[in-house]
Amino acid sequence: MNYRLGIDLGGTKILMLLVNEQEEIVGEEKVYTRASDGPERIISYLLTAADNFMVKNNIPPQNLEGIGVCVAGFYHYPSGKMVSSPNLPNWDDFPLKNKLEEGFSCPVLVENDANAAAFGEYTWGAGKGKRNVFLFTLGTGIGGGIVNDGQIYRGEGGFAGEIGHLPLMPGGELCGCGKRGCLETISSGRAIEREAQEILSSPFPTVLKDLTNEEEIKASHVFTAAEMGDEEAKKIINRAAYYLGLGLTSAVNLINPDIIIAAGGLSQNKRTFWEKVFSYIENHAVYASVRNLDLIPAALGEAAGAKGMVALLEGKNLR
Amino acid sequence: MNYRLGIDLGGTKILMLLVNEQEEIVGEEKVYTRASDGPERIISYLLTAADNFMVKNNIPPQNLEGIGVCVAGFYHYPSGKMVSSPNLPNWDDFPLKNKLEEGFSCPVLVENDANAAAFGEYTWGAGKGKRNVFLFTLGTGIGGGIVNDGQIYRGEGGFAGEIGHLPLMPGGELCGCGKRGCLETISSGRAIEREAQEILSSPFPTVLKDLTNEEEIKASHVFTAAEMGDEEAKKIINRAAYYLGLGLTSAVNLINPDIIIAAGGLSQNKRTFWEKVFSYIENHAVYASVRNLDLIPAALGEAAGAKGMVALLEGKNLR
Repeated sequence: MNYRLGIDLGGTKILMLLVNEQEEIVGEEKVYTRASDGPERIISYLLTAADNFMVKNNIPPQNLEGIGVCVAGFYHYPSGKMVSSPNLPNWDDFPLKNKLEEGFSCPVLVENDANAAAFGEYTWGAGKGKRNVFLFTLGTGIGGGIVNDGQIYRGEGGFAGEIGHLPLMPGGELCGCGKRGCLETISSGRAIEREAQEILSSPFPTVLKDLTNEEEIKASHVFTAAEMGDEEAKKIINRAAYYLGLGLTSAVNLINPDIIIAAGGLSQNKRTFWEKVFSYIENHAVYASVRNLDLIPAALGEAAGAKGMVALLEGKNLR
Repeated sequence: MNYRLGIDLGGTKILMLLVNEQEEIVGEEKVYTRASDGPERIISYLLTAADNFMVKNNIPPQNLEGIGVCVAGFYHYPSGKMVSSPNLPNWDDFPLKNKLEEGFSCPVLVENDANAAAFGEYTWGAGKGKRNVFLFTLGTGIGGGIVNDGQIYRGEGGFAGEIGHLPLMPGGELCGCGKRGCLETISSGRAIEREAQEILSSPFPTVLKDLTNEEEIKASHVFTAAEMGDEEAKKIINRAAYYLGLGLTSAVNLINPDIIIAAGGLSQNKRTFWEKVFSYIENHAVYASVRNLDLIPAALGEAAGAKGMVALLEGKNLR
């Protein structure tokens, strides 16, 4: 019996997924990491965690036919090296694929996490049966990936789909990528929280203040306050939706997807929000590219990346 | 001896190119059309012009193994129908591929003109040997096309690469596509001419006024006046370069090309202009995607589209 292991390596956690030949998930585990540990220690921890995970599931290493790891950040596919990662400090030029191949005794695939999630949703989730999938993640940051005719569209290095860094407010807030005014500095969870912080520092009572109740403010609080009619929160959410609509318009005009999938921690249960975002796309994108377009929430949850890696492993003739 | 015929169907002209099995161009001709004639008459004229062209070159129709036609506008590749064309009025829903197949007795391929030009430059021009080509055309309007791993990247319908309609000034000038504030309304030849018109209507003497000498103003006049130091013209050109840089930044972040090819009537002999545009891209795009990037002018001139169609015909096993 052969197994495939999909791993999502993020800024604060590692998610592992074990799949058998019948494409059944036989094991799933999440472990936490400290991004500040740097690549060598995080990879050594990942290798140990994967070994333990296999032992727990009673799978001997020789039964593993392939491992797929997706990673948050700019992973250069042709060279197998990280260029940099806004969420993983000190990974610049780290030879990720080599290090993983040294540590594991079976073939290893590596991919950017949003690319992997797009492939996962295309294979088993919201993008099933579609010709051209554009997936973007709305969470702390904003990422994106493209699947075209059943294959990840990577461009030169694997960096295609980076919608979070479209310069929608040139000269604006500083972004984790080093540039200013990227979409991520306007519409991401972190940006929404930053905007909301300003309301909290004003002396007037608001729904948002009641909701957060002296706790650290979360973007989800702002969405809830907006739904409850808080005018200030509504302004913040509308602004986020508007710029997200503009960014997605660029994606629609340049990539021409038949489906946009909204993924990430802030994507779920936001029907009104997505309807608004879609109306902004319709107002700005070329008619030819919106007439056959849908925008729907992701279906696979936080395991989309790991599932995508498992699906990619199947496509390769590994052994 | 078998031949292939490449045809570029534009708003005001039809360019025909005849190529033999050794990929030598054995005939080339340009005829003019009136866009206002509408699709039926223009296609009937195209068929006659192609017949005459073949007779002139002494090629009997049975020696033609394939015809490739590229067209200005939103051509829906899967259905073979035009959706619309800003430069060809009344082509909405016109079944272009069907009509051409009825008129010609050999296999016909149809493609958007910028897609075809991108494929032409990839095959024989400035994009030779590159993995991922983004070509854009700077002329009266602004178009774009993508070639990835040796294939035209079309997206759902063939509308990918439409950089001219990125909403860089939402709510701005009305665009031919029906939306407002598209890049095309800011940086195209037509937009540059519109801006320059305002200078001409002022009572003060300028270099630009001397250059145009009561003639109708052309974008090329504005470029020349800027090079000669005319401050007003420099402002117009800088603004065009800046927004072109922002639009190309979106293309770089979303498509991750290893080469950007500047094509179209205004692309040639503009080294300083393109250096400026490239510096705007470097200032705004993610580092991972600009470190291996070049921007160079197109090499094939106005025949790029027709040449691209000939190259596409070769890729298909037509007979």
